[in-house]
Amino acid sequence: MHRYILTVQCPDQPGIVHAFAQGLLNAEANILENAQFRDTITESFCLRTRFETGLDDVAVVRGHLQPAADRFGAVVTLRSEDTRKRVLIMVSKLDHCLGDLLYRWRNGELAVDIPLVVSNHFDGQELVARHGIPFVHLPVTAATKVAQEARLVDLIDEHRIDFVVLARYMQILSTELCEQLAGRVINIHHSFLPGFKGARPYQQAFVRGVKIIGATAHYVTPDLDEGPIIEQDVIRVSHAYEADDLEITGRDVERQVLARAVRYQAEDRLLLIGNRVVVFP
Amino acid sequence: MHRYILTVQCPDQPGIVHAFAQGLLNAEANILENAQFRDTITESFCLRTRFETGLDDVAVVRGHLQPAADRFGAVVTLRSEDTRKRVLIMVSKLDHCLGDLLYRWRNGELAVDIPLVVSNHFDGQELVARHGIPFVHLPVTAATKVAQEARLVDLIDEHRIDFVVLARYMQILSTELCEQLAGRVINIHHSFLPGFKGARPYQQAFVRGVKIIGATAHYVTPDLDEGPIIEQDVIRVSHAYEADDLEITGRDVERQVLARAVRYQAEDRLLLIGNRVVVFP
Amino acid sequence: MHRYILTVQCPDQPGIVHAFAQGLLNAEANILENAQFRDTITESFCLRTRFETGLDDVAVVRGHLQPAADRFGAVVTLRSEDTRKRVLIMVSKLDHCLGDLLYRWRNGELAVDIPLVVSNHFDGQELVARHGIPFVHLPVTAATKVAQEARLVDLIDEHRIDFVVLARYMQILSTELCEQLAGRVINIHHSFLPGFKGARPYQQAFVRGVKIIGATAHYVTPDLDEGPIIEQDVIRVSHAYEADDLEITGRDVERQVLARAVRYQAEDRLLLIGNRVVVFP
Amino acid sequence: MHRYILTVQCPDQPGIVHAFAQGLLNAEANILENAQFRDTITESFCLRTRFETGLDDVAVVRGHLQPAADRFGAVVTLRSEDTRKRVLIMVSKLDHCLGDLLYRWRNGELAVDIPLVVSNHFDGQELVARHGIPFVHLPVTAATKVAQEARLVDLIDEHRIDFVVLARYMQILSTELCEQLAGRVINIHHSFLPGFKGARPYQQAFVRGVKIIGATAHYVTPDLDEGPIIEQDVIRVSHAYEADDLEITGRDVERQVLARAVRYQAEDRLLLIGNRVVVFP
Repeated sequence: MHRYILTVQCPDQPGIVHAFAQGLLNAEANILENAQFRDTITESFCLRTRFETGLDDVAVVRGHLQPAADRFGAVVTLRSEDTRKRVLIMVSKLDHCLGDLLYRWRNGELAVDIPLVVSNHFDGQELVARHGIPFVHLPVTAATKVAQEARLVDLIDEHRIDFVVLARYMQILSTELCEQLAGRVINIHHSFLPGFKGARPYQQAFVRGVKIIGATAHYVTPDLDEGPIIEQDVIRVSHAYEADDLEITGRDVERQVLARAVRYQAEDRLLLIGNRVVVFP
Repeated sequence: MHRYILTVQCPDQPGIVHAFAQGLLNAEANILENAQFRDTITESFCLRTRFETGLDDVAVVRGHLQPAADRFGAVVTLRSEDTRKRVLIMVSKLDHCLGDLLYRWRNGELAVDIPLVVSNHFDGQELVARHGIPFVHLPVTAATKVAQEARLVDLIDEHRIDFVVLARYMQILSTELCEQLAGRVINIHHSFLPGFKGARPYQQAFVRGVKIIGATAHYVTPDLDEGPIIEQDVIRVSHAYEADDLEITGRDVERQVLARAVRYQAEDRLLLIGNRVVVFP
Repeated sequence: MHRYILTVQCPDQPGIVHAFAQGLLNAEANILENAQFRDTITESFCLRTRFETGLDDVAVVRGHLQPAADRFGAVVTLRSEDTRKRVLIMVSKLDHCLGDLLYRWRNGELAVDIPLVVSNHFDGQELVARHGIPFVHLPVTAATKVAQEARLVDLIDEHRIDFVVLARYMQILSTELCEQLAGRVINIHHSFLPGFKGARPYQQAFVRGVKIIGATAHYVTPDLDEGPIIEQDVIRVSHAYEADDLEITGRDVERQVLARAVRYQAEDRLLLIGNRVVVFP
Repeated sequence: MHRYILTVQCPDQPGIVHAFAQGLLNAEANILENAQFRDTITESFCLRTRFETGLDDVAVVRGHLQPAADRFGAVVTLRSEDTRKRVLIMVSKLDHCLGDLLYRWRNGELAVDIPLVVSNHFDGQELVARHGIPFVHLPVTAATKVAQEARLVDLIDEHRIDFVVLARYMQILSTELCEQLAGRVINIHHSFLPGFKGARPYQQAFVRGVKIIGATAHYVTPDLDEGPIIEQDVIRVSHAYEADDLEITGRDVERQVLARAVRYQAEDRLLLIGNRVVVFP
């Protein structure tokens, strides 16, 4: 049997489930997981279905679902589970998020392909090389930013990258690049957004005297730190933590939150409705 | 429009979703929430669907779904959201769980009817009366247990009770009663089961020196503290907590865990597969 | 034996612990709890000590500690545990925090006296009366605000109030009152500050699509929602929660966070260093 | 200035704090952190003090504290912070805990020396070698267990090991070795003890249908899984998790819990009172 993941997004109306269920029946599919969400604000219908069938050709399966998609004007994605998503990871100097993603990838927790890691520094090179993954050094200055991003886009095209992960990549992407890659770039911000946007969030948290710190994984948009939130988590701290302690403590949350967001994206669990993210369980 | 909740449980096979979607389409229904689970151990199909339709007669709606139910030999429940479930709460002396349930009920968080509260003591009488709910005193001794439980069953029948909540009711129900009410009695145990079964769990936790305590809401079965787990939660404690402190601290977890379990049951979010409970999100 | 709580705050230097330990020895005291914090930014020394002694006169005990206080220019508080702090609770319409505080007070979890509850509405009157506590209605408009706050200050003086709790009191205190009561007014803000300051935080959280919501207890200062943070906590939510669901869910966190902050203040666990709060465990 | 950590344990009585404060004053020390606990069951006094002084000779500092220790019959430890504790890590095949400890050690989060890693398998060899740490392969069978443990004890002596960490070492230490190393061996158990003792806890958790899984770091004693608990934490799971998913999910908790326990031990934050562990904040 072959396994597929289907996502559907369209204006809500009666009959959508029935129509796609008919398509799946025609594809001789058995549903393994099925989750559905109806957004009351936009009246959108959102669906994620994981199913298995004897059909091994994704195009043939898609053909069975096309009538339903056409009828409801639905945005549909269909992926064979055998076709892993291709991820490009970007990093600067701090490697705890990178290391964690590679660890989970190697252990089979993260079912993606990682054709390359890109960095504007050399700090992560050895770690990446050790995992048998090509490391590409793309330094960047204000003067070279346009060229560097053009080179990045070339790499994304060349390696047929599905999505990009900013694993503590400390450069701001240009508005143009953000728009070009909309919904395809995940960033980890080291605060519990919308608290402590901008630079040095742990220092900000220390000064403010918060009792809990957090991390936020979000899609990158031209509005810095305002992109749609995918996942967040927190950890309790006390008055005795200085900014350095907050930073060390926060790393554990950053790693977990980013890893979860990447897994969700890898497993087609995320759909965007405006600035909000549906996370299918 | 009228809103309904449907649950379906049957051996898994292709076509179930399609058949029920057909039934819903025939009932001119629009799906509001839909969650599905396939248990890989028993190969059971489980479904919870919340939908709305112009049809106001539950029997008519059921008629549209009957062909699907018959075809797959499914256990089906269907309830109009206007028909709230009827809950009988039992309590002994400690009233924190009772008080919390009544607070949520009064505030509209808990969409149930509470025709009566039963207790083997008088401690909760005033609290219950203040909420305008009849309080029934059913004392129990070893000698009167059979008669007391018979009276309880009468009350359950007379008030058409859907499920019973043991909100720190400190009596063990007889095996017969447990079997008669299987899947219809929710208990809160003041430990993180399976740790600290039996009496005085906070004292046990103190002696064992645990760093986290918890509470567990479960269906009552003849095997004491072994019933299917519905919900659990925990709270961090330290070496400085004595058994009394654990008890006070634990109350907050007990209240939250029981309230969630009752809400799940009230909203038809729970399905039993053997000794495990599916909790539809 | 009689129990006391001592707090000490002064510039750090060697010999402070020894000097106060000498004072306690002179008072024939045995230390039950002792916690100390040295703030590296301000180089402040902070101490909280709970001890018991045969001396029943707080003035006599204070006399034994005065030499140490004088020598180090320390700000010292000393309280007999028998002398409970006197709390004035203020509330507007929503009573979940008020109800929770009264519940804990009645159950003995919160060792304070509550001479009165003040409200600008009548919603909480019955709840308060039922607990045998005087309820004072102090309505407020822009025109009457000065007079209303003057009346409030009179009540605080008359009832020898130690601190004020704003349990969802939806009025902003004047700058003058904030300054007059600095360090003596605790507010619960229904967001995870510094995220979602200002009005309707649950609506803001919904629009922003956060995956976790929270609550913050803080001292009130003239800068709205910028006061020193005492305690925070959070709860996980999902894309399926609408603003109303966030509000209902958030109540549970608000209640817990405020109750903890009030208990800390009641037990002399809080010291202010600039805008940060030391919370002695 | 030189920094030291002092711990004190003795029967409680008045004057202890004063006597040690006198010793510290004589050593011209300034206290940086100070935490104290009085166990009401055993009436034990427990103290952890971190201080700095111009004295660079630990023996001289100890001399200043000896009178207090002698007077109260106290068990005292004193360590210069420059003298890191020496840790021997043991592992079998699963390397997630090992990898996490090495990551934190390399990043400076874990201030210990790791003279060697011992394993009964070769799986972790490359990971350990990459960190420049000697790897010792000590295979074990029922027949060779006595010899293997004797070799282990030799290594502990030879490398002046302060404590041993069982980072998913899947062998049971002999009663003799447990007793010989009492209070010096930390194990991570992959369940929320006392739930799911023994083998395959994730399988047990799956069968029982729990909604939260956990991990427990504890001192090893001859009673398997009954040793004093140092740290615990949990993570929420759902009915949709199979035993494999629980295992993958649980790894994150195991890593965090073990890392915290090792850090506590490395920083002299742990004192044993019978079967309970004081964890100084």
